[in-house]
Amino acid sequence: MTNLTLTAVPHLPHVQPGDNLAELILQALADAHMALADGDVLAVAQKIVSKAEGRLVRLADVLPGERAIEVAAQTDKDPRVVELILRESDEISRLRPGVLIVRHRLGFTSANAGIDRSNVAQSGDEETVLLLPLDPDASAARLRDDIAARLGVQVGVVITDSHGRPFRLGTVGVAIGVAGIPALWDRRGEPDLYGYQLQHTDVGVADEIAAAAGLLMGQAAEGMPVVLLRGLHLPITDGRASDLVRPKEMDLYR
Amino acid sequence: MTNLTLTAVPHLPHVQPGDNLAELILQALADAHMALADGDVLAVAQKIVSKAEGRLVRLADVLPGERAIEVAAQTDKDPRVVELILRESDEISRLRPGVLIVRHRLGFTSANAGIDRSNVAQSGDEETVLLLPLDPDASAARLRDDIAARLGVQVGVVITDSHGRPFRLGTVGVAIGVAGIPALWDRRGEPDLYGYQLQHTDVGVADEIAAAAGLLMGQAAEGMPVVLLRGLHLPITDGRASDLVRPKEMDLYR
Repeated sequence: MTNLTLTAVPHLPHVQPGDNLAELILQALADAHMALADGDVLAVAQKIVSKAEGRLVRLADVLPGERAIEVAAQTDKDPRVVELILRESDEISRLRPGVLIVRHRLGFTSANAGIDRSNVAQSGDEETVLLLPLDPDASAARLRDDIAARLGVQVGVVITDSHGRPFRLGTVGVAIGVAGIPALWDRRGEPDLYGYQLQHTDVGVADEIAAAAGLLMGQAAEGMPVVLLRGLHLPITDGRASDLVRPKEMDLYR
Repeated sequence: MTNLTLTAVPHLPHVQPGDNLAELILQALADAHMALADGDVLAVAQKIVSKAEGRLVRLADVLPGERAIEVAAQTDKDPRVVELILRESDEISRLRPGVLIVRHRLGFTSANAGIDRSNVAQSGDEETVLLLPLDPDASAARLRDDIAARLGVQVGVVITDSHGRPFRLGTVGVAIGVAGIPALWDRRGEPDLYGYQLQHTDVGVADEIAAAAGLLMGQAAEGMPVVLLRGLHLPITDGRASDLVRPKEMDLYR
């Protein structure tokens, strides 16, 4: 029977800057009597990767520039947060009161450059926000390598975030970091059920994994940032989330 | 432990026009000793819904109009297929040799209005193509109601298709029909891990289900068009895939 099981890894401690994520995840798996096997995929919410990598910024430390002050006025946002959004972005895609959509330096288009105050502990006046990992593909590869070194097991890793999207309402999980599996699975040329050659079937498999994991991670109080997927049978390969970024000149959908 | 299991329903027969889909699916589930339970969700590939509903069109029966002939020349496509695409669409979004992206009459934007030759049996000169279901939300509701009537079990149904998308490469599963669960899950106002009120967290949960199911359905020779998801704990409600269509005036991402 073709089966895919997703299990949220329980009892993961709150992640702190400097934590070794592989260690924390493997400990939580061991505590839950869950053993990793070759071919398993771990979906890891961006937030805990960013926290472990110390991507927290105290807003009190941010001095907004002129451009940030101007954009903050146009979007009704905190100029310090806008300053960080601009630093993390290549260009502004859309702005409007309450809305700031940018092309992130990592290539994808998202609201607020993925910068978020939710699920970040605030202590008194020490308001902090969390930036995306500096290089989530590298973060994913590190996690995969750490796990291979500690357990001798080859897993895939997908670092996930939630994005809004054009044409469709609702956020969905997307892959912003990938290691050990294809991000984009080129199935062109495979015969279909009736022997026809398929044409356009590059599957965004890492995004489908991120979306599936999103069903368990929830967005809120549950706080289950790591999901183990078993049963995918993907080729072990070196995909990257950056493979999923559609070059502007190929973007006929817009 | 928080668990989500996806199981592809095996041994589903090739679906023919006029088939009762609920009957076929319940028979295949029974043959596989799989019992449905309240809260289960069935993800069903659009193709078998369309086939059961007789949405096959013989190309020999299609007379392309002037506009179709013109667009076919611009896109290097079969004028008869283009005629069908135009009939199924409200407007052309982009065209270019090899590419015809339209806003489907159902509201979403996709290539070729979802019309496909793959996985449609061709007999001699009888070339046929498959249109999307006339009203996939209604198809989903019918399937849910049929199952409730036969088994007394309340399931959710998501009719899925694969779409390309702006900004990102690769197709992913999306929901084009929904019944019995929310399509868009409004989780605004729920507190996050640290007690903050979340803001923009309308989750495209039906799309995440479709993407997850896509991981098992494959696109090609596997031919596993029905996937059972268990463990979602979604509210039983009357969502529709049309809830996921972003109104043009709200589309700041484009």
